[in-house]
Amino acid sequence: MNNLGVTFPKGYKSAGVACGLKKNNDPDLALIVSDKMAVCSGVFTLNVVKGHSLQLCSEYVKSGKAKAVLINAGNANACVGRQGYLDALAICELTASALDCSPNEILFGSTGVIGQPLPMEKLFRGIKKAYDNLGYTNGLDSARAIMTTDTHPKTAEAEIILDGRPVRIGAMAKGSGMIHPNMATMISVITTDIKMSKTYADDVLKRIADLTYNRVIIDGDTSVCDKVILLANGQSGVDIDGHEDAFYGAMLDVCTKLSKMLAKDGEGATKLIRVEVLGAKTQNDAKLIAQSIAKSPLCKTAAFGQDANWGRLLTAAGYSGADFDSELCDVYIGDLLTCKSGTALPFDEDKALEILKEENILYRIDLNQGKGCFHVWTCDFSYDYIKINASYRT
Amino acid sequence: MNNLGVTFPKGYKSAGVACGLKKNNDPDLALIVSDKMAVCSGVFTLNVVKGHSLQLCSEYVKSGKAKAVLINAGNANACVGRQGYLDALAICELTASALDCSPNEILFGSTGVIGQPLPMEKLFRGIKKAYDNLGYTNGLDSARAIMTTDTHPKTAEAEIILDGRPVRIGAMAKGSGMIHPNMATMISVITTDIKMSKTYADDVLKRIADLTYNRVIIDGDTSVCDKVILLANGQSGVDIDGHEDAFYGAMLDVCTKLSKMLAKDGEGATKLIRVEVLGAKTQNDAKLIAQSIAKSPLCKTAAFGQDANWGRLLTAAGYSGADFDSELCDVYIGDLLTCKSGTALPFDEDKALEILKEENILYRIDLNQGKGCFHVWTCDFSYDYIKINASYRT
Repeated sequence: MNNLGVTFPKGYKSAGVACGLKKNNDPDLALIVSDKMAVCSGVFTLNVVKGHSLQLCSEYVKSGKAKAVLINAGNANACVGRQGYLDALAICELTASALDCSPNEILFGSTGVIGQPLPMEKLFRGIKKAYDNLGYTNGLDSARAIMTTDTHPKTAEAEIILDGRPVRIGAMAKGSGMIHPNMATMISVITTDIKMSKTYADDVLKRIADLTYNRVIIDGDTSVCDKVILLANGQSGVDIDGHEDAFYGAMLDVCTKLSKMLAKDGEGATKLIRVEVLGAKTQNDAKLIAQSIAKSPLCKTAAFGQDANWGRLLTAAGYSGADFDSELCDVYIGDLLTCKSGTALPFDEDKALEILKEENILYRIDLNQGKGCFHVWTCDFSYDYIKINASYRT
Repeated sequence: MNNLGVTFPKGYKSAGVACGLKKNNDPDLALIVSDKMAVCSGVFTLNVVKGHSLQLCSEYVKSGKAKAVLINAGNANACVGRQGYLDALAICELTASALDCSPNEILFGSTGVIGQPLPMEKLFRGIKKAYDNLGYTNGLDSARAIMTTDTHPKTAEAEIILDGRPVRIGAMAKGSGMIHPNMATMISVITTDIKMSKTYADDVLKRIADLTYNRVIIDGDTSVCDKVILLANGQSGVDIDGHEDAFYGAMLDVCTKLSKMLAKDGEGATKLIRVEVLGAKTQNDAKLIAQSIAKSPLCKTAAFGQDANWGRLLTAAGYSGADFDSELCDVYIGDLLTCKSGTALPFDEDKALEILKEENILYRIDLNQGKGCFHVWTCDFSYDYIKINASYRT
């Protein structure tokens, strides 16, 4: 829309600066500050192993109040022992003193390499630099600063008119590899200037994360640092009360856009794949099948190879753990029916290739045995996925 | 040992011939015949979608008696509807009439592309050709005929002396991609000349498959056609009674060798990786972690890149579903301790590279919280995995 991202709603400044965590002097520290104290909510990785910054953030977010979000890339601040937690504390304290708030009003996150202590000197200098660079139109800078293997910064924005006044939602996200339902190496911050309670913030963020971020699958891995944060500062002067549906729709739109961008920018990806399962006995069966297909290296390499190998889709459904009768299943590549009632159909290979040459692909299985449905977004597996991940740390 | 594979034990002939299912006139049909009726057992894929040949085989194996095993490569005989089952029936009937036995004494299997009807004319001619080529030293031919993307045929053999008489076990296997616990695109046939009951055959095959074939993970996919068959024809004149332990040890050795060959010959693999988890609260926790690491594209690409990225191992453990405290975990790459009590250790990168340059790699996590342990074998993910699987069908 306008790439203002988290600075699109009223009353948010941000900055993205380089403090030396990434090579090449790329920006690696994002600061987002709300003029007024914001209501906040967060959803966090379900990984048993949790980064130290994330641990602290998940405690602080419970208070429901936040002045700022600070995120560094290039270092996950994970698996470095007690020092990692103390470092996160010190960073929140320094940021809070600059912003004249209390440390637990700073939501801090880290993403990057595991097992290396944060270079605190660099971060302290970085925080000062970020503070000096805060601006009301710098949303894109902070989106750029949180990137790891992402090829471009990702922002989305929406505006709705409520009670005759503009209400805005802005967001940024990073992802690329290791993304899997329930937060992967994904970080997203959503800001809005509507007024809402902590209870509503928790509810809407959870519901929308389940429909968007938690439906992105890159490689099935799930990282230790990842989270989505929502800030609502009320600066539009509009209260959510009575406007829940309109707000929900706009926020869903913003988060859906970002989720599709995340899937499409998966490491080495050349295609965005929507996996759609319908006609399952239960929604959970549909979910198991959609996730199984999206995680399958064979389905993902077939997409890269533009090969209409529907047998791999049905195979991945078969080992998903879902309960179904394969002899009722129809399998589509785009609009092309390739398998009817579990049996191969002769289909036009040229037409299939035409479909698979597109950047956006639909894999669809209709089980024809109930009303359960589910979809996820994923991408293909290419040579570049291997290249990026064979040499990430060194 | 001697590459005699399934023809190493007394009283087994075999053949591997080309009947035109594979390109380039490569052999694609294996026939193994026991001189005397053999006791048989089988373990089969748990995929909900099952190939038609496999469906018939899993019915026939229940009788406990088999004269022969017939396997074609190049075509999975799966997802082609009722005709696939009828074709499998016809093939067993033709083979039985050639071997003068009843159709349900023929165990038929198919592996290859899904969704294409079997070219029955070719198979009929192939069965006659295989029959004409049967020989007591042709085990390697049949091992070659069942290959799909395998780079070499796989056999293993063992001999033990019981009651002063030689007892032999011979086996062949194919695998490569799509291998995952509970039978993937894996087919194996084990022959022995010891005498055993159907009950014992079922028990020993299940126990050993759980310790060997079901511990091989290539890409986490699980196919629709795959199985392990055991034949025991009693021709050594020795009865298993009283020799259970010795036989079990020898069979375990044969199946372990084949399983490691399967993992090492994974599609595009450059390394054999043993993932070892110990100190878990339960064996199931250890299993979840070992499988999660072995399936993780990030752990597999790190091995390919010779990158001592232990953080990815701990991350994969963390999302495995196992219950553990990450702050007690030690992570080893080979003998090198890289993470102690969940905290990064400084380690010698040159030493790590030396370890990771080897063809055989050990990933080990000691959770230090109980006695549960488990191991699996896997391989790395390379450019060639993508290459092979992006263009398999076409």
